[in-house]
Amino acid sequence: MHHLGMDDDAFIRGMVPMTKREIRILTLAKARIRRDSVVYDIGAGTGSLSIEAAFQAEEGHVYAIERNPEGVKLICENAKKFQVKNLTVLHEEAPAGLEGLPECDAVLIGGSGGHLAQLLDALDGKLRHGGRIVLNCITVQTLMQCIEYMRERQDYTYEAVQVQVSCLQQVGPYDMAKACNPVYIVDCTKE
Amino acid sequence: MHHLGMDDDAFIRGMVPMTKREIRILTLAKARIRRDSVVYDIGAGTGSLSIEAAFQAEEGHVYAIERNPEGVKLICENAKKFQVKNLTVLHEEAPAGLEGLPECDAVLIGGSGGHLAQLLDALDGKLRHGGRIVLNCITVQTLMQCIEYMRERQDYTYEAVQVQVSCLQQVGPYDMAKACNPVYIVDCTKE
Amino acid sequence: MHHLGMDDDAFIRGMVPMTKREIRILTLAKARIRRDSVVYDIGAGTGSLSIEAAFQAEEGHVYAIERNPEGVKLICENAKKFQVKNLTVLHEEAPAGLEGLPECDAVLIGGSGGHLAQLLDALDGKLRHGGRIVLNCITVQTLMQCIEYMRERQDYTYEAVQVQVSCLQQVGPYDMAKACNPVYIVDCTKE
Amino acid sequence: MHHLGMDDDAFIRGMVPMTKREIRILTLAKARIRRDSVVYDIGAGTGSLSIEAAFQAEEGHVYAIERNPEGVKLICENAKKFQVKNLTVLHEEAPAGLEGLPECDAVLIGGSGGHLAQLLDALDGKLRHGGRIVLNCITVQTLMQCIEYMRERQDYTYEAVQVQVSCLQQVGPYDMAKACNPVYIVDCTKE
Repeated sequence: MHHLGMDDDAFIRGMVPMTKREIRILTLAKARIRRDSVVYDIGAGTGSLSIEAAFQAEEGHVYAIERNPEGVKLICENAKKFQVKNLTVLHEEAPAGLEGLPECDAVLIGGSGGHLAQLLDALDGKLRHGGRIVLNCITVQTLMQCIEYMRERQDYTYEAVQVQVSCLQQVGPYDMAKACNPVYIVDCTKE
Repeated sequence: MHHLGMDDDAFIRGMVPMTKREIRILTLAKARIRRDSVVYDIGAGTGSLSIEAAFQAEEGHVYAIERNPEGVKLICENAKKFQVKNLTVLHEEAPAGLEGLPECDAVLIGGSGGHLAQLLDALDGKLRHGGRIVLNCITVQTLMQCIEYMRERQDYTYEAVQVQVSCLQQVGPYDMAKACNPVYIVDCTKE
Repeated sequence: MHHLGMDDDAFIRGMVPMTKREIRILTLAKARIRRDSVVYDIGAGTGSLSIEAAFQAEEGHVYAIERNPEGVKLICENAKKFQVKNLTVLHEEAPAGLEGLPECDAVLIGGSGGHLAQLLDALDGKLRHGGRIVLNCITVQTLMQCIEYMRERQDYTYEAVQVQVSCLQQVGPYDMAKACNPVYIVDCTKE
Repeated sequence: MHHLGMDDDAFIRGMVPMTKREIRILTLAKARIRRDSVVYDIGAGTGSLSIEAAFQAEEGHVYAIERNPEGVKLICENAKKFQVKNLTVLHEEAPAGLEGLPECDAVLIGGSGGHLAQLLDALDGKLRHGGRIVLNCITVQTLMQCIEYMRERQDYTYEAVQVQVSCLQQVGPYDMAKACNPVYIVDCTKE
């Protein structure tokens, strides 16, 4: 059985930025993925979130949507490496590519290409009541767009946290703090 | 089914300090609890970690060890509230109380009462190979004791991170950052 | 001589929130106050920034502007306690009260009452070229308004940092981390 | 006049790690350097702290002590660039090199080469009553050694904070948080 929060090094990464382990764990936990969930992973990057979501939704399905061809290739390689069967990769820039997908229970958003409101509108047509959208924001602008969108919707609530992780690197006799960039995690629930 | 990372408010808390949600999620993920795991939760406090561990180890068992009578009472109340059956509460100050317990796969340490090396020695006699000890440290001294202990053991590896979470409180039209105290999470693997 | 960064406890505080020492030091350093500077402190609160600015601008002058009567009272008490002569307190909600003031070299903004763009427009009419506006933001909205304003101005540059300070409290044999809320410090230079 | 907290880019840096601006500002403020102070900067690196200390102690003197030849060269180059006259560079590994120096009012410690207790003993013979030692610690071990030393001394008090700074990098239309490594700043006062 695969546990939540695999080592970053377990994934094939290339030059594509990857969600760090602690952020991955929190994002997946906040998405409340069940065994039979349908999950979209938008801006899937290396696919590390998609792969872990697929392990959690073992009787469900994950759709990884990524516009960058290098990302698409990495996701496929990682899916193969981890023998994940319940994962479909779409080479699209969301919201393009969403129409044909089944309704979903959870959405992970790592990147929105700058069209967040439009993307959230499109996702709303797909997300079941009680479902969750979890965004990882590394820019103030994306955070603000998400907050503004959610504040205008009466049928969503949101909770936002900023998470800053530093790893203690073991260098000879020392443990030296090495910071990861802070990430805002916004989890939005559709009533 | 219970998801990992329940709301802090879901637990009966009293005046006892409680591990915050994000730290709870990361601690439990790093402990790699399986469906059939035996887990010790030492310095269990309100029992929030114990309860969530018990949901994960649904065919296993959790032993919550707590020296503070108010804590013991809260753990029992929370176990009752969440109808958790696979949880045993021991009113002891570890390592007292450990002898009679079955071998374990994972140990969570929230408090050590200042006898950390002695406690880790006792736990070593109980922890299976491949098992994990995950400590939450809020003092420099506890962190240092843990690191020093693990650096002297050839049969353990450890990974330490510091996690700082700030919640964005929704106050009228504003989202205002409210910091939680930083926590060091050390996860130690027995080879 | 007074040094930069007096103890928080040195100030009379009442119930009014006060800028913590480390944030005060960074804010004042980034404002680049000279011996002869004219400084505005807007939303001056307890006056801790005003007092320290007045020590730095010993041949200049500080104007503390505060809408809250309790704040005004505290600033006056602190000015008296520290025998500061080059400080004038205005009981106004800025931009009201700015018209009659002399041109300035530095502006400190701790609170804007939600009219930040209007306030920055008014300040622009008073700020000398090469002068600096330094904002402390504790909400995402204020940060975003400031950034958006500065991005539209060709004649300003800005630099923004987020600062998170945790104090190690000495509790018996332990040093325990206690987080202060994170603050964004934006310093804006008028070309 | 030079202001406190010059841009990191103002200094000639080479490959030697440099104390980041915000940490430099806080370190110098906590050292309470006066116009006539004698300051030691131990493990001076690029000399950025030494140079700024020399500006503050314009009628005093700064002794920069550095064991690394590349560091010594950089300090000299920076002193020349900023036309600093009241700075002496010693190519030594402290405590070697301290004997011949005059008594001091403030000590900045960026690196101790692993002999911190011995170094603090030697410094105690040189530091005036009321003087300050300010350490920047990036490892848990150095922090702990400093705390342990200071807790055993009845004639010193200390205050420790952890500071985590993230810069918002302006990337096209976005402001993206980029973390600096967290630093513990310990300031110690000799009664």
